Formats: sequence, C-alpha cells, structure tokens
Amino acid sequence: MSFLDQLKAEAGLIETCLMDALSDFPKDRITDGMTHALNGGKRLRGYFVLQSAALHNVPHDQAIWSAAAIEALHAYSLVHDDLPAMDDDDLRRGQPTVHVKWDEATAILVGDALQALAFELVGSGPLEPTHKLALSQTLARQAGGRALIRGQAMDIAAETATTPLSLAEIESLQAGKTGALIEWSCAAGAIMAGVDPTPMTNFASCLGRAFQISDDILDVTGDEEIAGKRLQKDTTAGKATFVSHLGVEGAKDKARALVAEALHALTPYDAQADTLRDAARFVISRKF
Amino acid sequence: MSFLDQLKAEAGLIETCLMDALSDFPKDRITDGMTHALNGGKRLRGYFVLQSAALHNVPHDQAIWSAAAIEALHAYSLVHDDLPAMDDDDLRRGQPTVHVKWDEATAILVGDALQALAFELVGSGPLEPTHKLALSQTLARQAGGRALIRGQAMDIAAETATTPLSLAEIESLQAGKTGALIEWSCAAGAIMAGVDPTPMTNFASCLGRAFQISDDILDVTGDEEIAGKRLQKDTTAGKATFVSHLGVEGAKDKARALVAEALHALTPYDAQADTLRDAARFVISRKF
Repeated sequence: MSFLDQLKAEAGLIETCLMDALSDFPKDRITDGMTHALNGGKRLRGYFVLQSAALHNVPHDQAIWSAAAIEALHAYSLVHDDLPAMDDDDLRRGQPTVHVKWDEATAILVGDALQALAFELVGSGPLEPTHKLALSQTLARQAGGRALIRGQAMDIAAETATTPLSLAEIESLQAGKTGALIEWSCAAGAIMAGVDPTPMTNFASCLGRAFQISDDILDVTGDEEIAGKRLQKDTTAGKATFVSHLGVEGAKDKARALVAEALHALTPYDAQADTLRDAARFVISRKF
Repeated sequence: MSFLDQLKAEAGLIETCLMDALSDFPKDRITDGMTHALNGGKRLRGYFVLQSAALHNVPHDQAIWSAAAIEALHAYSLVHDDLPAMDDDDLRRGQPTVHVKWDEATAILVGDALQALAFELVGSGPLEPTHKLALSQTLARQAGGRALIRGQAMDIAAETATTPLSLAEIESLQAGKTGALIEWSCAAGAIMAGVDPTPMTNFASCLGRAFQISDDILDVTGDEEIAGKRLQKDTTAGKATFVSHLGVEGAKDKARALVAEALHALTPYDAQADTLRDAARFVISRKF
C-alpha cells in the first residue's frame, strides 16, 4: 500500500475513535463545534503515533487512543490559533473556522473542550496505567508553556515585532509551535513500549523542522483549494519565514537535508520503519 | 485552628507548589501571565482536595499536586471566562484580568497553558500511577464538554436568550460551571485512596449548589473591594439567577438547606470531617 493510501486508511480509524469519544457528549453547540473542528485534516500526527507504536510492537487497538488524543490536541490548537485575536483565519481544512461558523466564545470553549478531550483520550484504552500516565505527562509538557504555547506566543509576538526574526529565532519558535506535537507523536510508541524514545525524538525533530519549512514553501507556492486554508498569509504580513530568509530553492534544499537527517535517525530500525521513511519523504513533496 | 486560618495556611502551601511548578518555565510573557492568573484566590477547591485526602488518610505531600492542579484548572477557566468574547471582565482577585494587563492573544494562550499545567500537575508527585491516572481521567471529564465547558456555554447562551432561564436550567448550568470542579476536588481524596467517592460527591454536589447561590447573593449584596471582582453584573445584564427567582432571603434559605444536606452527606465520616463541615458552613456566610 502506498504511503498516502495507508495515511488515508489510518485517518479513517482515528476519525472513528474520535467520533466514538463524542458519542456520549450532549447534543449541543459545543459538541457540534468539536465535531466540526475534528473533521478533515491529514491526521499526520495520529499516523505518526500509530507507526511509532507498530515499530515498537504495540497493538493498534492500544495505540489508537493516543493517535486520537494528539489529533484532538492539534485541532484545539488550530481552533484557538484561528481566532481573531490570534492568526485571524476564516478557512481551515476547507471549511469555515469555528468562530466564523459560530462565534468567538464558542471557538474559545470548543478549543478548551478539545484540549480536555485529548487528556481524556490519552488515558483511555487497554494500555498499562503506567504507560498511559507517561503519555499524559509528556503530552502535558509538550502542550504547555515550555513548548507548544511558547511557540504560539513567539509566533504572535513576531507579527508585531519591529525587526524580522532571525533564522535561529524561527527555528526556536517552530520547535514549539510545530515540533512539540510531532515529537510527542513519534515518541509515543516508544513510551507505550516503555523503551528509550531518543531515536524517535531525533527523527521527529528533523522531520518537524522539514515539515514547517514545507509549510512555509506551501504558503508561497501552494494552491488554497488543495491546501484547504488561506495561503500567502506570511508574505502579506511581511513575516520572516524560512522562505524569506533562504528563498524557495534554498528552503527546499534545507528541507531535503533535514529529511535525510531524519532518515538517518531511523538507522536503528529495520525495514519495519519503511512507512515512516515514506512519510518523511512525503513531507517535502506535499501539496496540502 | 479556625477554618479561615486553616484555609490560609493550605493556600500558602498550594501557592508554593504552583510557583515551584513554574520555576523551570521560560522567563517570558506567558509564564508571567500564568503567574499573574495563579496569584490570589481563596484556593477553596485546592483546600477541598487536601481535606478530602486527609479524610482518606492520604499524606499531604501526595495530595498537594492535585490541589495545585485544580487551582491551575480553575485559574485557566477564569482567564478564558473573563475574555471580551465571554464575560468581559476587567477585574479578578483584585487585579486587572490577563487580557487587560496584556492582551487577548496572551490571555487565550495563558489559559491554554494553565489547562495543560493542570494535567501535568495531577500526574505528578509520589502517588501510585493507577491513582494518578484515575485523577487525570476524572479531571479531564469534569473539565470537558460534558461538564465545565457545557456549563460555560449555557452561561454564555443565557446572556443573549430571549426568555430568562428557569430555576431548573440555572441548576443544570451551575452543575457544570461551578459544580464540576468542586465535585472533583471533594472526590479527589477518595480516588487517591482507591475507595468509592460517592459520599464525597454527594457532599460536593450540595455544597457546589450552595456555593453558587452564595455567589449570586454576593453579586447583589457584596462589596467589590472584598470580593476582588466586579459585582452587580447579573442584575445589570438582566440575567436570571437564584436571587432573581427566589429573592435574597429565599436564596439564603435555599443555600442553608443545601448546606444542611451537604453536612448530612458527611454522616459516614467522624470528627475527622469537622473541617469540611466548617468549610460548608463558611460557604453561606462568605463575603469573598
């Protein structure tokens, strides 16, 4: 099966897990907003969780909960990031954003509820309690003020900064904003198996950086309809990105180098890691 | 020691735990905002955690993490509730709210980071992993779309509703908005000890309702300087409350009846529960 077919199949299973989780929620506007925000998306983070689990011989039905959890957490961060006081976006995954479809208060609360749902999901399912707790603890650290939120805050600050960010500052920002959740996703399988997640974290760190560079390239060269979100945002805002620093070709070179480094980090793993290798290669060719 | 002295002493210990947790956070605006939002407050929810733990013979140094966690979660919900798109408040715990002192984006992110911190704290400390996981799972449910967020959403909807809420609707709203976290706090000690939390949940359910009624009374009769927040908000907004339905005296009667019911729920516990009994009595006499 090709990587994209496999991604699609896993995305369907993650979606089922997420919708099952919402099935005993009240039939109200918050649940509608959560469902809306959870719809669509590549499910790349959830896919990394499932691949990382498979690589460490953790059964699919034990890993799916964490895959759903990271997608709930990612969806929450998008809902809040799209708010008028933040990035002010009206289109996400080809649909109106939550505050556009409903209102700001609903979007704030839907995001809040999705974060809580992530922590509910990560502690659910048949894994050992010790491992579920370790997943929850590492997720809380990656989602908090030291990582994801730090990156988000740096990103907001960059928009009104008088001098554009340096490359080193962009790397630090992106390590939080994009890297934190991708690292957790790739490490998750090792955590579930109770083994050292370092090779997976190294893989994810390179991959996360390549992913962000490809996002910057997409912002300049992509097609809004295929991407499902507004593009050219950074250029219009005059924001410093990997592309503004390195040019499109320079950025592509850097992304390729990072993917090579990511593949190198997978050396300890045999052919079982081939789908992760395909995933890494996909990151530099993606159009969405 | 009187109940208020004991509350003050425990509040200091909870504060220390929270500030320790932030000590390895980056020195940035988000951490400053988190510190600001965590400052002050009665720490009543944290106090209930510690009392519930003591009642179930769980050592203080094992319970303090959950006490800090519920205060972080409560602080997050206040920061988001005070946002312009929500309740639009400029004063909290005698200080400017986070979006007034900084800006809306900072307040959104500070709230998000505080929620993540709550889940980090609840899984920390020397308790058994199974019990920490149970605390985390129950907290995630109480903080999410079935409870806290459902109450918040009903509250926001009530502000623009064409017909005022009925008493039953107010009870349902408050069961989420105020009841969910108070129930978790009171049940926490039983969960830590691995015993049935039902008597504590019954106690908390009555107490939470009495607490909310006293909040409604405070909104009408209280002193802003002692309360540390804006009052008369519901009256000005023409919002239905326990007081608008029952009058001040009727509301006081109902709060007293609920406290009596709360005390009755503590019948299985001996004199060890006397401080909780004092806490319940405090709720109907409080001025802040």
